[in-house]
Amino acid sequence: MIRFLTAGESHGKALTTIVDGFPSNLQISKDYINQQLKRRQLGYGRGLRMKIESDSVEIISGLRFGKTLGSPVSMLIRNNDWENWQNIMPVDPVNDKIQKVSIPRPGHADLVGISKFNFDDIRNSIERSSARETAARVAAGSFARKFLQEFGITVGSYVESIGGVYPEKPFIEKLFKNKLQKNFTAKIVSDKADKSTVRVLESLQEEKIIDKIKTAKKRGDTLGGTFIIVATGVPVGLGSFMNYDTKLDAEIAYSIMSVNAVKAVEVGEGFLLADKYGSRSHDEITF
Amino acid sequence: MIRFLTAGESHGKALTTIVDGFPSNLQISKDYINQQLKRRQLGYGRGLRMKIESDSVEIISGLRFGKTLGSPVSMLIRNNDWENWQNIMPVDPVNDKIQKVSIPRPGHADLVGISKFNFDDIRNSIERSSARETAARVAAGSFARKFLQEFGITVGSYVESIGGVYPEKPFIEKLFKNKLQKNFTAKIVSDKADKSTVRVLESLQEEKIIDKIKTAKKRGDTLGGTFIIVATGVPVGLGSFMNYDTKLDAEIAYSIMSVNAVKAVEVGEGFLLADKYGSRSHDEITF
Amino acid sequence: MIRFLTAGESHGKALTTIVDGFPSNLQISKDYINQQLKRRQLGYGRGLRMKIESDSVEIISGLRFGKTLGSPVSMLIRNNDWENWQNIMPVDPVNDKIQKVSIPRPGHADLVGISKFNFDDIRNSIERSSARETAARVAAGSFARKFLQEFGITVGSYVESIGGVYPEKPFIEKLFKNKLQKNFTAKIVSDKADKSTVRVLESLQEEKIIDKIKTAKKRGDTLGGTFIIVATGVPVGLGSFMNYDTKLDAEIAYSIMSVNAVKAVEVGEGFLLADKYGSRSHDEITF
Amino acid sequence: MIRFLTAGESHGKALTTIVDGFPSNLQISKDYINQQLKRRQLGYGRGLRMKIESDSVEIISGLRFGKTLGSPVSMLIRNNDWENWQNIMPVDPVNDKIQKVSIPRPGHADLVGISKFNFDDIRNSIERSSARETAARVAAGSFARKFLQEFGITVGSYVESIGGVYPEKPFIEKLFKNKLQKNFTAKIVSDKADKSTVRVLESLQEEKIIDKIKTAKKRGDTLGGTFIIVATGVPVGLGSFMNYDTKLDAEIAYSIMSVNAVKAVEVGEGFLLADKYGSRSHDEITF
Repeated sequence: MIRFLTAGESHGKALTTIVDGFPSNLQISKDYINQQLKRRQLGYGRGLRMKIESDSVEIISGLRFGKTLGSPVSMLIRNNDWENWQNIMPVDPVNDKIQKVSIPRPGHADLVGISKFNFDDIRNSIERSSARETAARVAAGSFARKFLQEFGITVGSYVESIGGVYPEKPFIEKLFKNKLQKNFTAKIVSDKADKSTVRVLESLQEEKIIDKIKTAKKRGDTLGGTFIIVATGVPVGLGSFMNYDTKLDAEIAYSIMSVNAVKAVEVGEGFLLADKYGSRSHDEITF
Repeated sequence: MIRFLTAGESHGKALTTIVDGFPSNLQISKDYINQQLKRRQLGYGRGLRMKIESDSVEIISGLRFGKTLGSPVSMLIRNNDWENWQNIMPVDPVNDKIQKVSIPRPGHADLVGISKFNFDDIRNSIERSSARETAARVAAGSFARKFLQEFGITVGSYVESIGGVYPEKPFIEKLFKNKLQKNFTAKIVSDKADKSTVRVLESLQEEKIIDKIKTAKKRGDTLGGTFIIVATGVPVGLGSFMNYDTKLDAEIAYSIMSVNAVKAVEVGEGFLLADKYGSRSHDEITF
Repeated sequence: MIRFLTAGESHGKALTTIVDGFPSNLQISKDYINQQLKRRQLGYGRGLRMKIESDSVEIISGLRFGKTLGSPVSMLIRNNDWENWQNIMPVDPVNDKIQKVSIPRPGHADLVGISKFNFDDIRNSIERSSARETAARVAAGSFARKFLQEFGITVGSYVESIGGVYPEKPFIEKLFKNKLQKNFTAKIVSDKADKSTVRVLESLQEEKIIDKIKTAKKRGDTLGGTFIIVATGVPVGLGSFMNYDTKLDAEIAYSIMSVNAVKAVEVGEGFLLADKYGSRSHDEITF
Repeated sequence: MIRFLTAGESHGKALTTIVDGFPSNLQISKDYINQQLKRRQLGYGRGLRMKIESDSVEIISGLRFGKTLGSPVSMLIRNNDWENWQNIMPVDPVNDKIQKVSIPRPGHADLVGISKFNFDDIRNSIERSSARETAARVAAGSFARKFLQEFGITVGSYVESIGGVYPEKPFIEKLFKNKLQKNFTAKIVSDKADKSTVRVLESLQEEKIIDKIKTAKKRGDTLGGTFIIVATGVPVGLGSFMNYDTKLDAEIAYSIMSVNAVKAVEVGEGFLLADKYGSRSHDEITF
């Protein structure tokens, strides 16, 4: 059984990840994980934080000579700006008075956090509810990614839309209709997306999105968006219909929905299927 | 910790549910559970099966004098048509030759099931992948429903659309804008839906849907749809942002997506948020 | 992952077991499970209950034509004396006044049960804390036993002592010194024990124990005892030292200690090792 | 739900612990945890390692101003001797040839470890199977200890015997007979034990044990032993008989047996009960 725990406040000393359950002798390097961490930090118009960060992993245990030992892997992602935060986020008690955060932001866990955990400083809850926690998950996920590669399974992603700007020639339709190039893998589409500042597949769309982001910034506003995840090389029969809690769709929905700000998940055509006849929805059985 | 397991093949002797972890002294009756099972069987144009069924629960253990004992609750939902299936689905070996199901249906677990579990009879996999399993979950869920009621929490639902026929005056918009009647509870909307053959809220929509179903039936086809689940009386702070696996949104997505044929889940406005500015997406903080 | 839940009160309608996670196509029969249930009921001087019982399993689901489907297996073990208990242990409310059990027994969960679960009738807690629950576990365990047999692994047991009466020529010493017959399997010792009324290996010991039981009965008293479990054919490397919660010893201790009245568990020589030099404790490494 | 994961090789850079599920606002300090770590390192005749170590915890996250945030707590216990091991236990690949450990020790996980995890260097398995992992558990356990203190529950321990040298006036008998001083707490006995080099309660016993250890050392041998754990202030009703996997005895047995070299666990009088009449075994019910 593969499992993991993450720990760490957004402006604390470091994020910690323990990943447990991967087999021994899996080859993986710090560089490989850092590359994934870097992909997380792509994006136009992201906050200053992203520039300061340039996350880098320190592997504490679980590997020897570049290979897993089968033991739990421990990793740290240090906060590069810790120097400026050590008086605000110290582990130990301090004598000085600290300025508390007292104005909760809408659409965030600020208010509910201090109610639930009985705090008088919103910082105590925003530090962990921050999306920065996902960096620790990326570190954990790198092991999964590397492990799946051994079986020829790749998982890739791209941004479908930001602020309502969708692609002209949606890649997804080709994908659903099985009209992609012969040797298509999720890696191909993901690599292409990595080359775009906003991880989209079309350059015109990219321009429009950057404009939209600029506008939003000027207005002091933010934008929503959608992203597509593709996996290729997946063998038939992962997951099981034998129980409500072994279904692959459910596991995927769980993982995606647990990411900050995600409010919807579709598998395959998703909601599009709702308006269709069954005869148009079901995949034909082929050899 | 509340947990449950279900067992049972679609045309087997009975479905079994064990629900564990509810406190002692919770009052609940067979009638209450049967009423929920009946709600599951509502619907226009459903297969013959639904008429045969008229599911009824037999509580085997976990209750005494109409109250929970704190011990695991065991329940059976018998297959009313078992008599006609006992030669096809017997637990014990038989001498007779059995006609195997050999043509897999698209959009079902038929083919993947026999591959994964090494069968030569598709029946072996369709019996458990059948949506009939959800009856056992309804029995389990009845305890959750009753338990939540003790805290003034009600969970209700209605069908939003079938085959692309949506309501004229979508209730959901009022809900999102907080423009519902003062004492609105999820029960109110759910009770209203229960009065419709297809569990919608508008009678014109109901007519159109029934027409659409008739058409689909004639064509030997099926229809998709969408449904809305509402919960009221929910206290602030359920779930937690402290871990990826304690987030309420994720848990909800998991549960919904684990239901047969569900391919998409939204929380709140869901995908609508993707195209909006943040300033239009976040709930205002009020007293 | 193999998991199971049991339900059922000692004098309720039936015990229920759901076992989940066994692979498909495992051959197992009602007779096989009943044979294991019968072994649970062996013993001299056991209460009247054991005679009434003669437990028999009804498999509700999870099997077809004598083979597992890979789906959860559901089983009932009915209470043969239910007729006489249906007014005392009914699931539904009754009008009649019921005589409550109000005197807690020492050494039982009687008192703590009613405190913890807020009951005014001790019966409500003794029904589930009863050792009869282990019958449901035996049913679950039968699947594990059958599954392990496929790999040549057998698990057997015998009673080492009752009331302080130990064997003259302890089998266990031979076992520890590897001085058993060449083709020794756990099944051999277990089958031998099954032939004894009190499941011991020596007939003189059996006589003495029966005398001791008679004496205890006359005094209105009970006796303690010890039992040995042996497994043979076990491959090297089950469990793992990588985590505190994957250690086989710990799992075994958990399972054994969860059986009613068990208050101690040893692995191998157990406490004997405490007084020895390490050089006398460690198994020599051989080919 | 409280849970934790540990990671780290015995001679690696550091041990890591993530503890999750403790409530917010629990006061705990580095010193408190270090004090517990120091208690783990007490003992006469322990290896050189213990002197080098003098373990000290670094809290990475989960606390602010000396109080828990309700978020997962991450801690490092660095290997003080890492400097001398960085060429033997590096995370990254190296060019130099490394001397492999090739002679497995009896009574250790050496041989089974390399078989199970497919290594050709025994070091790869002894590093994680080492008892040093328990230091990470002590760090985790410190939070449990501090949390329980808030409810007046203390857990203490002492060494009962080493190499077969038992106390003259066994404290445990007084404990079982309820003949201890009025305000007895587990802390009292534990503090007393902490003052002994070998954590026993009697000075004569201590002398004898030290002699025995000296003898064993001269012979190049090791000694076994037994220890007693006492908890006081524990409320009635922890754990539950409702399920095999919620029983407190079973949980305790699991935890204790998962510690390296532990091969037996008793609750209360344990095996002593096996030879007694029930009337002598059961605690009398008192007010």
